Amino acid sequence: MPRLEKIKYEPISVRELFLEMKNLSELMIDLAYSAALFNDKGLAEDVLELENRVDTLTYLLEMEIMIAARDAEDAEALVGVSKVASAADKISDAAADIAAIVLQNIGVHPIVSEVFEKVEERLTRAKVNEDSILIGKQIGELDLAARMGVDVIAIRRNQQWIIDPKGGEQIENGDVIIARGAPHGSKGFKALAEGKLRKLED
Amino acid sequence: MPRLEKIKYEPISVRELFLEMKNLSELMIDLAYSAALFNDKGLAEDVLELENRVDTLTYLLEMEIMIAARDAEDAEALVGVSKVASAADKISDAAADIAAIVLQNIGVHPIVSEVFEKVEERLTRAKVNEDSILIGKQIGELDLAARMGVDVIAIRRNQQWIIDPKGGEQIENGDVIIARGAPHGSKGFKALAEGKLRKLED
Repeated sequence: MPRLEKIKYEPISVRELFLEMKNLSELMIDLAYSAALFNDKGLAEDVLELENRVDTLTYLLEMEIMIAARDAEDAEALVGVSKVASAADKISDAAADIAAIVLQNIGVHPIVSEVFEKVEERLTRAKVNEDSILIGKQIGELDLAARMGVDVIAIRRNQQWIIDPKGGEQIENGDVIIARGAPHGSKGFKALAEGKLRKLED
Repeated sequence: MPRLEKIKYEPISVRELFLEMKNLSELMIDLAYSAALFNDKGLAEDVLELENRVDTLTYLLEMEIMIAARDAEDAEALVGVSKVASAADKISDAAADIAAIVLQNIGVHPIVSEVFEKVEERLTRAKVNEDSILIGKQIGELDLAARMGVDVIAIRRNQQWIIDPKGGEQIENGDVIIARGAPHGSKGFKALAEGKLRKLED
């Protein structure tokens, strides 16, 4: 069972909360598929952690909506937001169900792997090692998309997730980076993060 | 309430059933977002129809798995497939929840539209009219991706769905085509389907 966060009201805009929920739930599906495909327990644990985060966001959003709705008209306008947010929560639950299979050692049947393999661009999870030349570099200056066809979609740093990081974000030692890309580029990127490859390809 | 299909056992491979479930559930999420964004009741109805199909597939898959599992070892290997299929079913439920908001006239709050708008490449739903120059053409020969940056991802024909149609698939009068593409191309494609544009751009 993932540890449950204590929910405390924080003033965050409904828009911001909802955007994060939608992005996280979509990322979680991709991560869960990749976790199942590669039987990757680390990725599966990330999914459960994100599921925790989405649950917290759901509570915060519901509270924010309650506060925002002053009369029947407001409530009518906002009930749709609450419904769509519940749908995003349901999607993240589904992703967590898939991740749980990986963690429970139920094993992923070849049929599942085969179907998930159709995903052309896969996700990779790479932990930045102290030897990595990526440390201190900004994501933008690395120009990973052009160089190796790889796109950084999330960074996990000290229990926090940075989703869709900006180009100015600096990579730190110990970061766990989730990247999307074709197999060859992903392999190279993982080697860079783990300090096994010490030079950027041109 | 969507009409419920009577479920009757048909021998379809677990792999085929599962692949269709996964593809449909993903398509449904995209369709539901587009339905909400454009307040498009036609798209929303498509989502509910597909949800019906996914429910049927879920039953067929469970039956197929029961038949395939002859002993404890088989059952252990197949329980993961059943779990992942349930997750796909849950995702399709979430999509149906979003579609229901559109059909119930709850209205889509600007916050929701704004967040869904971030999806760069949107889905379009176009009904092929008898005047359309697309009729009788194979999808492949139209070369829509190169010409207008549009990709046909599904065709609804006589209550049936053709998901991810092959290049040899011929377009028929009355087809409802779901295409993905940037706004300009999508608009052109819709005009072609509706017979308002009578010439393919080069």
